[in-house]
Amino acid sequence: MTSPDTTDRPLDPGGPAPASDVVRLLTEALGAKVRTDEQTLARVRTDESGHATDAPPLALVEAETVEDVQAVCRICTATGTPIVSRGAGTGLAGGSIGGAGEVVLSTARMDRILEISPQNRLAVVQPGILNGALNAVLAEQGLWWPPDPASKDISSVGGNIATNAGGLLCAKYGVTRESVLALKVVLADGTLISVGHRTVKGVTGLDLCALMIGSEGVLGVIVECTLKLRPAITGPVPTIAAFFEDVEAAAHACSAVTAARLEPAIMELLDEQILAAVSAHTGVDLIGKGRSYVLIQTDGPGAEATAEQIRAVLEENGARVEFARDPADAARLVEVRRQVHPAMTRLGTALIEDVAVPRDRLSAMYRRIAEIAQRHDVVIPTNAHAGDGNLHPTFIFEGTEVPQQVWDAADELFQYAIELGGTLTGEHGVGLLKRRWLGDELGTDQLALQRRIKAAFDPDGLLNPGKVFAPVEAAPANQH
Amino acid sequence: MTSPDTTDRPLDPGGPAPASDVVRLLTEALGAKVRTDEQTLARVRTDESGHATDAPPLALVEAETVEDVQAVCRICTATGTPIVSRGAGTGLAGGSIGGAGEVVLSTARMDRILEISPQNRLAVVQPGILNGALNAVLAEQGLWWPPDPASKDISSVGGNIATNAGGLLCAKYGVTRESVLALKVVLADGTLISVGHRTVKGVTGLDLCALMIGSEGVLGVIVECTLKLRPAITGPVPTIAAFFEDVEAAAHACSAVTAARLEPAIMELLDEQILAAVSAHTGVDLIGKGRSYVLIQTDGPGAEATAEQIRAVLEENGARVEFARDPADAARLVEVRRQVHPAMTRLGTALIEDVAVPRDRLSAMYRRIAEIAQRHDVVIPTNAHAGDGNLHPTFIFEGTEVPQQVWDAADELFQYAIELGGTLTGEHGVGLLKRRWLGDELGTDQLALQRRIKAAFDPDGLLNPGKVFAPVEAAPANQH
Repeated sequence: MTSPDTTDRPLDPGGPAPASDVVRLLTEALGAKVRTDEQTLARVRTDESGHATDAPPLALVEAETVEDVQAVCRICTATGTPIVSRGAGTGLAGGSIGGAGEVVLSTARMDRILEISPQNRLAVVQPGILNGALNAVLAEQGLWWPPDPASKDISSVGGNIATNAGGLLCAKYGVTRESVLALKVVLADGTLISVGHRTVKGVTGLDLCALMIGSEGVLGVIVECTLKLRPAITGPVPTIAAFFEDVEAAAHACSAVTAARLEPAIMELLDEQILAAVSAHTGVDLIGKGRSYVLIQTDGPGAEATAEQIRAVLEENGARVEFARDPADAARLVEVRRQVHPAMTRLGTALIEDVAVPRDRLSAMYRRIAEIAQRHDVVIPTNAHAGDGNLHPTFIFEGTEVPQQVWDAADELFQYAIELGGTLTGEHGVGLLKRRWLGDELGTDQLALQRRIKAAFDPDGLLNPGKVFAPVEAAPANQH
Repeated sequence: MTSPDTTDRPLDPGGPAPASDVVRLLTEALGAKVRTDEQTLARVRTDESGHATDAPPLALVEAETVEDVQAVCRICTATGTPIVSRGAGTGLAGGSIGGAGEVVLSTARMDRILEISPQNRLAVVQPGILNGALNAVLAEQGLWWPPDPASKDISSVGGNIATNAGGLLCAKYGVTRESVLALKVVLADGTLISVGHRTVKGVTGLDLCALMIGSEGVLGVIVECTLKLRPAITGPVPTIAAFFEDVEAAAHACSAVTAARLEPAIMELLDEQILAAVSAHTGVDLIGKGRSYVLIQTDGPGAEATAEQIRAVLEENGARVEFARDPADAARLVEVRRQVHPAMTRLGTALIEDVAVPRDRLSAMYRRIAEIAQRHDVVIPTNAHAGDGNLHPTFIFEGTEVPQQVWDAADELFQYAIELGGTLTGEHGVGLLKRRWLGDELGTDQLALQRRIKAAFDPDGLLNPGKVFAPVEAAPANQH
């Protein structure tokens, strides 16, 4: 896979300034916050997807204040230099990686909590704070920010917002979009705007706060986040381990739980290959008990009664059910689920895909994945957030270059997810790695409209060029 | 107050077609769906705000299909004719009223339920179905669409979405935005696009589904809605009636409930003037028991325990609390709350405002409202959705013309809400009646950005011109 052809993006009429001028201007304005050492630049050429750009960026700027971000944007606009904003760098779609001629603007050091208000059930934070670190502080006050990506201990709140991060709890508690009240955003030219409200309700003008969420750095740089909190979940969290004959039976049972109007907090499905890999990686024997596994937790008021109802539905659908009554056992089972990603990377290079389908199509999707794997002679262990229909088919291969048959298989998989009324990315985002398929899902008319909206924010095309939207001219020749 | 100066909007280079041509073209394409009789046109010049345009529109088209909507948009684009989309006409901000030279495009007859899927916990409906009618059908299947504006029995789902309607339940169950998965939208030129997903998660490209919600007809015409459902609430719904010495004490107690991490389903605050009017209108004596009144319900699992905790907080904060144990009594108290709007209109002409403030500023806002009322010699009964900080200061006056001192008082009230970190409209929208203050809340830079986004959707400015955004040149001279 090639890196984005960064020379093809639109530039201001005078053309870009020489690279040395840009770095000089940045250094004059921001001093030691500008990093150009080889090791640093190598780090920000890649993310957790493993994909790297073909060449290092010009510089990494580690912003510490809103004014720093504005200064970078003004210099980059004046010199026609692309800006790649970046949080903790844990993305899985190449959305925040910097290449030739680009400046990577990191908000990782802007990691302070500015306010926690139990009265208004909100927190105001800088974007660089890690989700897990924030929630540790909130928990002391009986509060909780629900977004729950598997990466939460290492991913930033700003990154969670920029990708509209999902996670395990979304069917019950919503995606990140439902947990953000307001944002401060720096536009490409350095203008600072405030979108959204400190209030629960607010309908003044177009909802640009919602539009910013999941926009992957192509509209603006998020510099402050007002987060909608919930009361911390208290009381027991009954945990169910359910084993099935095969993955289709497991998927069918999960759909039956939803159809029965029951609301688990998490409902995670592991297929046989995932089960084997996770058992080997963690030393917790799951594969000995069944060929597919569903982990379910209920929480909040009525958690015990809901768990019993869910157990009944699972058993009617062929499950062998175990209850983890001990909180430590339960926590260990959830931790096992969180080890899926590390377990996959032990098997080889792992390209983690991220389709989502309507919940009643989960077993159809699993069936098709098995067919695709066989036909293309590839290995595709697949786990799913079964409560919301989000599957992670994971392609395992050797080396760093994605083999052609993997892309061919992925292409078929995406097309089928879209055909089922689903999406090619449930929670990871488009970034560089999925922009090729963007038009397949949005359609030509909507894609053109989305490009016009991008231009309304960023007329010079300097914010994260080549991410989400392929360069117009280069698109056919420059896929992935 | 004058109507929007519809002659000042941008038109296509050739200028608009003569009105007779537009009506002829519409009638050729759509036959009897095109209405030009005087009574019909008089009806669509106004909404529940009582505000009317200065002159009737050219025609009302009662679309029955998506193709009808596309045909209207194509004819209007070809002839440079403005399009005002309209649902049930229950808006409170003049957002869907048609004036001189405009075509009103109603989706009220597109009122079918296309699909209900318990497996996917979604419904697909046409925009014209009434919220209450839909929920009656859903209830039979143990499902529920949460948006709950006071108008729900007479307002349409499409209108709820176009205004991002709020209501009584938002603190616990979110605003309309949280209950919409996908939309089909016809753009000004007749192009049909699909935004959002049938899935819980989906992050492919910019979130145009979220952007459409609350866009008040200025971006596109909503023609199909995929709604996110919840399981119907079952079990008892404990209901608390709490009486206070004064409204500030009541507001303070409501803030204390939120600060205590408790989650009522509804928490409605009525001040003394509202209490007197509602008591007179409904015959339920509330004013005899206190000078301010808070109605609270809890629901779902743990409802009883939560209600007891809330009672304790209220009593600590000076309330005299009554529990309505009988479901009929409880339903009657909720119905009393829903009669606030009719009770107000009995007092005179009622201009219902709609500010929202951070929840801990509720008592500050009430204090300021009392000062403003006294200083401007106006009457401002005010109820509040206290769970989410949304207040409805209601100006009562004689006749149809809003007196200048009412606008002056409203202006002060809006400025103070914004100063507190709030908004000039929590749930009614900007429409015509609040566009004057849009820039006060958004700021100049964001307002310019919002206009560019509007232009990206609707380059000829034909969709609901003069609503939300004032005509650019005419703005200073053409307020309200």
